[in-house]
Amino acid sequence: MEKPIRTILKEGRFNVNGSLWLEHEGQRFFGPGPVELLERIAETGSIKQAAKAMGMSYKKAWDLINNLNKMGAQPFVHTATGGEKGGGSTISDEARQLIAYHRQLRERFRQFLEQESNRLKQ
Amino acid sequence: MEKPIRTILKEGRFNVNGSLWLEHEGQRFFGPGPVELLERIAETGSIKQAAKAMGMSYKKAWDLINNLNKMGAQPFVHTATGGEKGGGSTISDEARQLIAYHRQLRERFRQFLEQESNRLKQ
Repeated sequence: MEKPIRTILKEGRFNVNGSLWLEHEGQRFFGPGPVELLERIAETGSIKQAAKAMGMSYKKAWDLINNLNKMGAQPFVHTATGGEKGGGSTISDEARQLIAYHRQLRERFRQFLEQESNRLKQ
Repeated sequence: MEKPIRTILKEGRFNVNGSLWLEHEGQRFFGPGPVELLERIAETGSIKQAAKAMGMSYKKAWDLINNLNKMGAQPFVHTATGGEKGGGSTISDEARQLIAYHRQLRERFRQFLEQESNRLKQ
């Protein structure tokens, strides 16, 4: 590098940003969207309510869940049908672990972005 | 983490992937697209040809360049009008430096993604 990068940029707040996701065989299947969906299913016990809260169609939510369930050694979302309350959905312990992993991954990514953004100021 | 993350995922090739860009005041202005555009302008001396090679409209290319030029302490792309060859565009030394910086940034990001993908296998 001939000059510090900040000298070739104008004044102002510059930063590095990005997005991150998990892939299986090159296909994206997990990121902030599915995480939020899982968390809301855990909160509400309802895929319909979780989808609604995210402004997501019921079909899209089911597509995400079906895809996600296929990625697990065991399904991440369980749905009971019938019964007094007309069913209800829960997430597995493994789903909670996947959410925790994702939180840690995001934190490491945040640190990477912070480090790179600081580098721009040097 | 209770269990290694790989034990809750099915068998197969899992990896972490992502994208990265530069922002000014929260607005994205630089990433792989603008880098390729700059490189192709350097090769061809022509914004029109550079845009065409990328399947990008001439207008979109100009929008990217005008936006990019505003981010520099000096403009990154110079366009001469008229003359024997009817003008031609060149990129500045600072543009070359920005490209070099971006290459290094991508390499650091590649390492981050590799590290995270390896972590999934542990």
